[in-house]
This record gives sequence, C-alpha cells and structure tokens, in this order.
Amino acid sequence: MNAVVLKGKLTGVGTGPGDPELLTLKAARTISEADVIAFFCKKGSTGNGRAIVGAHVRPGTLELPLVYPVTTETSKDEAEYRGPISDFFDRSAEEIAAYLDAGKNVAVLSEGDPLFYGSYMHLHVRLASRYPAEVVAGVTAMSGCWSMTGLPLVQGDDILSVLPGTLAEEKLAERLANTDGAVIMKVGRNLPKIRRALASVGKLSGALYVERGTMANGAAQKLEERDESPAPYFSIVLVPGWKARPGDDR
Amino acid sequence: MNAVVLKGKLTGVGTGPGDPELLTLKAARTISEADVIAFFCKKGSTGNGRAIVGAHVRPGTLELPLVYPVTTETSKDEAEYRGPISDFFDRSAEEIAAYLDAGKNVAVLSEGDPLFYGSYMHLHVRLASRYPAEVVAGVTAMSGCWSMTGLPLVQGDDILSVLPGTLAEEKLAERLANTDGAVIMKVGRNLPKIRRALASVGKLSGALYVERGTMANGAAQKLEERDESPAPYFSIVLVPGWKARPGDDR
Repeated sequence: MNAVVLKGKLTGVGTGPGDPELLTLKAARTISEADVIAFFCKKGSTGNGRAIVGAHVRPGTLELPLVYPVTTETSKDEAEYRGPISDFFDRSAEEIAAYLDAGKNVAVLSEGDPLFYGSYMHLHVRLASRYPAEVVAGVTAMSGCWSMTGLPLVQGDDILSVLPGTLAEEKLAERLANTDGAVIMKVGRNLPKIRRALASVGKLSGALYVERGTMANGAAQKLEERDESPAPYFSIVLVPGWKARPGDDR
Repeated sequence: MNAVVLKGKLTGVGTGPGDPELLTLKAARTISEADVIAFFCKKGSTGNGRAIVGAHVRPGTLELPLVYPVTTETSKDEAEYRGPISDFFDRSAEEIAAYLDAGKNVAVLSEGDPLFYGSYMHLHVRLASRYPAEVVAGVTAMSGCWSMTGLPLVQGDDILSVLPGTLAEEKLAERLANTDGAVIMKVGRNLPKIRRALASVGKLSGALYVERGTMANGAAQKLEERDESPAPYFSIVLVPGWKARPGDDR
C-alpha cells in the first residue's frame, strides 16, 4: 500500500513596502517554515521581495523565481502584452502546483499586500480552489510612504481614492476634485500629467512625491519641487485629505 | 554642572488588524524598547491595541492608558462631541509631552496603521514638530479583512474607494457606481443603508461583510446573507473590483 501524499499548502505572503523590519511576524514564520519560496522577478534580478525576506529563509529551502516575460512599462490593454502575460501566469501556477501535489508547502512572496494590486492574485485565482490556501496580509507600499513622510492622510469621515496614474488627465482631475485624500500609483512616465491634474483642481501644493518608500535609498519631496526627470514606475504621489492642525478636530 | 536631559522620542506604532502575528518586526522591537507605552481605550477596557502587543511589553514598562471621554457612536459633526474630544487630545498630548521632556521614549499604539484613520494622528499633529517623531506603518484593518476572506480586491488599473458608511445613501450609491473596488468603513448602524446603496447600483451580490477581521473571533459572510441585527461599529464591507477568473487577465 502506498502512502497517501497530502497536498501542500499555498500561502501568499506580503513582504511589506521595503524595510525588512516592516515584515510581519507571521510572514517571517511562514517563510522560515516553507519548503519552497516562489517570487516574481525581472530577468537578471531576484527582485525586492526576495531581498526583503533574506534573513528568514532557511538554508536548503527550494527557491522558485518566476521571471516576467516582459520588462517594459506597457499598458495591460495592449493586446501584445496580455496574451504572453496570461500564459506566463498559467505556467507559473502549474510550476507551483507540481510542488503542492508533491506535498510541499509553497510561500509566494508578494511586495506590499498580496491582494492589493499584487501579482500573487493571478496565482491565487488559479490555485486557491484546488489547494489549501492562505493569505498573509502585509503593510502596503502606500502605508510605508505616508508613514515615512509623517503625512496624516485620512481621518474621521474622509474619503480616500486610490487612483492609477494611467487615467486620462481630465478623469484624474475629476477624481482628485471629488475626494478628500488620494494616493496615485504607477507614477512613472505619467508624472507631468499627474502634476497638471493636481494643479487644475488646486491640490498640487499639498502633494508629496515618494520614491522607494521605507527602503534604504527612499526619498520624498514636495511634488511641486520635483524636477521633470523620469520617475520610477513604482513611485507614489500622496494627496493629504485631513487638513489637521491642533484644534481642527475641535 | 547639571546633565542635559535629551528629549525622548515619540513613535506611533501600528499594531495591525488584530492577529498578534500581524505585528511587524519593527513594531515588536519598538514596543520592547519603549520606556512608556500609551494607548487609547474606552473606560473599563485596555483596548485591542494593548491586547495585540502583550507578548512584547517588557516587565517594568510604564503604561499610559488614554481613556476616551465619550463612548457612544456619535457623529463628529455633533458640536457636543467635538469640544470634549479635542480637549481630550490636548490633555493626552501634554501627558505624553511630560514623559518626552523627561527623556523617556514613548510608543503610542495605534490599531491598524497609525496615519490611516488612526487616533494617533491627533497626537502626531500636536507633538511631531516639538519632539523627535517616527511612524511605524502597520497592516490596515481592511488588508486584514480581505486577506482573511481571500478576496482579490483591486488589480492593474482598478480604482479603489475607501468610503465612510456615514455618507448619505445617494452619495454612497454614486460613489459605489463610479469605482472598481470599494471598502466601506464604520458600518455599525449604517448597515441597512449600505445594503440599499449597493443593491441600487447592482453591486450587492459580490459584497462581503467582515467583523473583527483576523481576530480569533473574526467572521465573514456574503453581505446579502447577513441578517439585520446591529453590526459592530468597526465592521467592514468589501466590494471586489477585479473580476478575475483564470484567463480574465488575458
């Protein structure tokens, strides 16, 4: 009689915004107990997630890099990107499934929080119905950025809008006019447009620009004072909602 | 010659959504090194934040409970609430300032993330310009809730709106119609209104209701199936943006 092999468990693990100390205790434990750690990366790099968790990987742990087939900043609406990237997620899911079928526990690293714009989501929807699965929440990049700058973002009955920098300028301006706080993601080449949209609704002066928030080389400045040089894709713009001064809560 | 007493450091420490393992390594270290830990609580309870960090408080650490003067769920627009609560934040800040002036490092516990709707913000704006100050980002309650349910919330170019359940029904419906994902906070007695607003824009069926996310007694269910009994103030409603099935990213 052959032994029955129990299926392994899939865990999506949030690695936080960059500072290795902003990993949760649960993430550190999950990574140290995993048989396999998988992580998305670009060709020639193991990526930020793997760097963040370095101290917690047991010697002998299997490592499964999932190397993106496309490296340029491309809109997901472009047909030539969508086919290959979906095939890539299919293949990545099956590579992980092979380990899970063999009874291995697989931790998939996800920068920030796994279910908040994370690539892990593409694996979760392919695998979570077939295997035991858990998600370990992480500190988001936006939390890391506003904490680093000490900027009180939203309070009380404020509305917060998280907006992609890829929105059309008029749409972005309309959204920014009709919210209290805002976080603009995917800044990259959209920086000049974001600046114009904020200026058009009178919200440029309070906005902050943050690059690599909470990382050793992280930097923040007033968006007004940021020069026109290209911004990294994952930089963030923060627009404070709460106009708090002592007594404004009175 | 008298020794000069250096001012102590103020740190706002995010304690995460409830599971003590979702504390960050930096939060655990900051708490274990603090001379004083301060935390907001209601009369007769030390509150969730203090319970979450229990394992990391050194014996002998001074504890400073900041007891809210008002315990009922009251709108901040009501004048009879705003005066006393602002006076309370003034007094709390001065209690903490006395320790900072004496060279003591003070960690203020903040459930979730300190600068994301946290009471800590009221202390930060009163003290951060007068003393060395740092904010330790935490996992938000909303991240805890969607991770617990495994609900992919937003992906790619999705817009996320974080909305207070206190909004008027028509306003809430309009916001829900014009977003991809949404998180509705401060559910409490607003639950029936939130349900009607979601139904009016055809988004009720996908919505989840979560109570005490990631805590030992946490629970989640489809909002459609939630009965009409009163909801806790801090329960959350999640409306998924990303309609992902394997291949929808193709």
